[in-house]
Amino acid sequence: MKFLKKHLLGLEGVPKEDLEHILETAKYFREILDRPIKKVPTLTGVTVVNLFFEASTRTRISFELAEKRLSADLVNFSASGSSLSKGETLKDTARNIEAMMIDMVVIRHSSPGAPLFLSRVLKSSIINAGDGCHEHPTQGLLDIYTLREKVGDLSGVKVVIIGDIAHSRVAMSNIHGLKTMGAEVAVCGPATLIPVEMDKLGVKVFYSIDEALEFADVINVLRIQLERQKKATFPSLREYHDIFGITKERLSKYKKEFVIMHPGPINRGIELDTDVADSKHSLILRQVTNGVAIRMAVLYLLSGREI
Amino acid sequence: MKFLKKHLLGLEGVPKEDLEHILETAKYFREILDRPIKKVPTLTGVTVVNLFFEASTRTRISFELAEKRLSADLVNFSASGSSLSKGETLKDTARNIEAMMIDMVVIRHSSPGAPLFLSRVLKSSIINAGDGCHEHPTQGLLDIYTLREKVGDLSGVKVVIIGDIAHSRVAMSNIHGLKTMGAEVAVCGPATLIPVEMDKLGVKVFYSIDEALEFADVINVLRIQLERQKKATFPSLREYHDIFGITKERLSKYKKEFVIMHPGPINRGIELDTDVADSKHSLILRQVTNGVAIRMAVLYLLSGREI
Amino acid sequence: MKFLKKHLLGLEGVPKEDLEHILETAKYFREILDRPIKKVPTLTGVTVVNLFFEASTRTRISFELAEKRLSADLVNFSASGSSLSKGETLKDTARNIEAMMIDMVVIRHSSPGAPLFLSRVLKSSIINAGDGCHEHPTQGLLDIYTLREKVGDLSGVKVVIIGDIAHSRVAMSNIHGLKTMGAEVAVCGPATLIPVEMDKLGVKVFYSIDEALEFADVINVLRIQLERQKKATFPSLREYHDIFGITKERLSKYKKEFVIMHPGPINRGIELDTDVADSKHSLILRQVTNGVAIRMAVLYLLSGREI
Repeated sequence: MKFLKKHLLGLEGVPKEDLEHILETAKYFREILDRPIKKVPTLTGVTVVNLFFEASTRTRISFELAEKRLSADLVNFSASGSSLSKGETLKDTARNIEAMMIDMVVIRHSSPGAPLFLSRVLKSSIINAGDGCHEHPTQGLLDIYTLREKVGDLSGVKVVIIGDIAHSRVAMSNIHGLKTMGAEVAVCGPATLIPVEMDKLGVKVFYSIDEALEFADVINVLRIQLERQKKATFPSLREYHDIFGITKERLSKYKKEFVIMHPGPINRGIELDTDVADSKHSLILRQVTNGVAIRMAVLYLLSGREI
Repeated sequence: MKFLKKHLLGLEGVPKEDLEHILETAKYFREILDRPIKKVPTLTGVTVVNLFFEASTRTRISFELAEKRLSADLVNFSASGSSLSKGETLKDTARNIEAMMIDMVVIRHSSPGAPLFLSRVLKSSIINAGDGCHEHPTQGLLDIYTLREKVGDLSGVKVVIIGDIAHSRVAMSNIHGLKTMGAEVAVCGPATLIPVEMDKLGVKVFYSIDEALEFADVINVLRIQLERQKKATFPSLREYHDIFGITKERLSKYKKEFVIMHPGPINRGIELDTDVADSKHSLILRQVTNGVAIRMAVLYLLSGREI
Repeated sequence: MKFLKKHLLGLEGVPKEDLEHILETAKYFREILDRPIKKVPTLTGVTVVNLFFEASTRTRISFELAEKRLSADLVNFSASGSSLSKGETLKDTARNIEAMMIDMVVIRHSSPGAPLFLSRVLKSSIINAGDGCHEHPTQGLLDIYTLREKVGDLSGVKVVIIGDIAHSRVAMSNIHGLKTMGAEVAVCGPATLIPVEMDKLGVKVFYSIDEALEFADVINVLRIQLERQKKATFPSLREYHDIFGITKERLSKYKKEFVIMHPGPINRGIELDTDVADSKHSLILRQVTNGVAIRMAVLYLLSGREI
């Protein structure tokens, strides 16, 4: 089956067969990562630009490794020291870089919609690596891949996403993707951190952690992103931990074994306690590994290359 | 024909046959950029260091892509966080890097003559990627390449370079290269931004934009580089735009179709209006594309490798 | 002989046969650096992460070139703009990067023991590229390689290390490695810059430069690392130069030709005068060249790959 999409801007509206196709392709690349020679010549001569307008380590490194293991040529562009500081528009920066005969652009930007904008002014394939509070589709895909690897078919699987839903592109991509895959999705957090229109997405909303845990099989714990909150939306980190922190004690009250996920980096002792993060039910490091495979799959499929 | 030069420090004094040889070689590499696999093994095992002592995005990326598409190994060195901040001299930094068995050095530096200095203390080939107000020869070459692609033989073609001539290495490299190729060259700008000795280079000087446009077939609009001016050399950006800005209205007074060039990044609405920059007579994005081909040609020719 | 070590954390306690094995392997890679194609496919598909928590130019570039010339895939990670600034622990950062299926980690860190810590929490091979005042083993190895290349067998060769011994990981690695190779090692510097327990390492201590020069065949001059001293440990740079600076005049009082080494970057006119640094008895640039070969050898041997 040929993949007909050109961009990956978000998981909202992406049909199930496309998600399945990406997940199946990722399985092939995931196997490559276990080989001694973790490299294929698939994208030789293809040029990818990583346009990171927000500081990032793990997402940039994950994309960079995916690109190198596909044998693509890549250039990194970060906002500091760039022509943007010389007053150039995003459109001009992007069109100029594209004029160097770029095939694909991976963009992270603090403005929601920046990847969509690029997809309209450029001919290259655009991959959204996180745009403001909008979406982070490769994170959503790697979460789905990792969860499927653990529990199989996602139909009816109950996932609760806990934390700062309002500022989380990770939550948005998870919600859209998980719903499409048939999971039941809930969110839980302080009322100040949950957007009012959540229920319109077909998502349950819990303001009580106990009700959320009663409901869920899988807990996706979001990072409290202090750097992204413009103002204080809860009284203190200690209070957040007391009310919403995922601790061993809290989980032990239920007669089920929760699957634990977290997009990282973890604030240990705030949203997630160390013994839960490092327990055998935690998929956290697997998420990181699978992230490289998902990004290889997305890069490969959007390139239009045949293997 | 074997290329006998070892360095590219500037276009001043470079004979026409050498310019022709670079331009012809670039044509070969330009074709490669249109292929699905934009990569050749020409410089496999050759090591290039990009020594950027001034912040730069597009020139660095252009060189980096040229190097990668030639399969060279490259390392990037930027001034911040370097041994220079530990008090090391440029000579020591360069000799130390060369001692790691480097073949070629691409240098951008705020001091005119830094590349010449390196060519005297190092055995590597040196490519000037811009040295203060002196020269930016690969920019001059890509401008000439792009103009030839558009208008053919440059003999008698009338080019006016408009803007801050005094602070512009781009202007200098264009003047030297275009004159050698047989073009008639003029400069135009506020008197404070035109060096007194301009006419000694065989260049016409216009202080009136109308006289300049009367003369010219081709307009190379320079960026107003606010960051490079030590003091205010004209009253305001608005006044600069009113007197020297290239607008559709201003051009429409003449019964000819001007070719529009700009080295980028554009200050839209200051030195160049958007409808002119994006018109069909604008070569601006082609300049960017051809820049990669020119840099591939220069790297290849100076390497002494046979294809 | 298969190399059985997995990590290179320091030279302390490394047996002579292991040092010999690394030095012999480096000889093979040193020859490759003289070829027109300075590249071998030895580590194709192996992924190395350069984790630099301290700013560094030459060591990072040297490792990067070693990795590229072995055809490894590499990603650079520097502390600024990283998840560490988001409050992540070193352990989490490292385990997350390793989860991307990394084979080897090159780490530079301001805390002594950071590489040892990583070797305990990661499965990857760890190479110490300098940890606080502890060790810098590849520098020690390249110094030993370069000295052997010059003088042959090191048994009984008299080496004095001059300068800020207390803050120098270079001194520590040299002392351990040189002692194992049979050299006689002394240190010399202001009393404030020499740790009290030096003699326990079997190292002579000289507080007088004249006694040190009387003793030595080889002078390894350390850089005065002003940035690493927490407080002033000597009155002034001028006084340091007058009392401990290595000048032509000072050396000419002895009827022997000293071999001169320095790990770079040199503070010319402070710890070392220009005519000594650039004399024919100086091995300084050779140290830099051999550093790439040593790092290639270490990367290759720890990878467990067969050539």
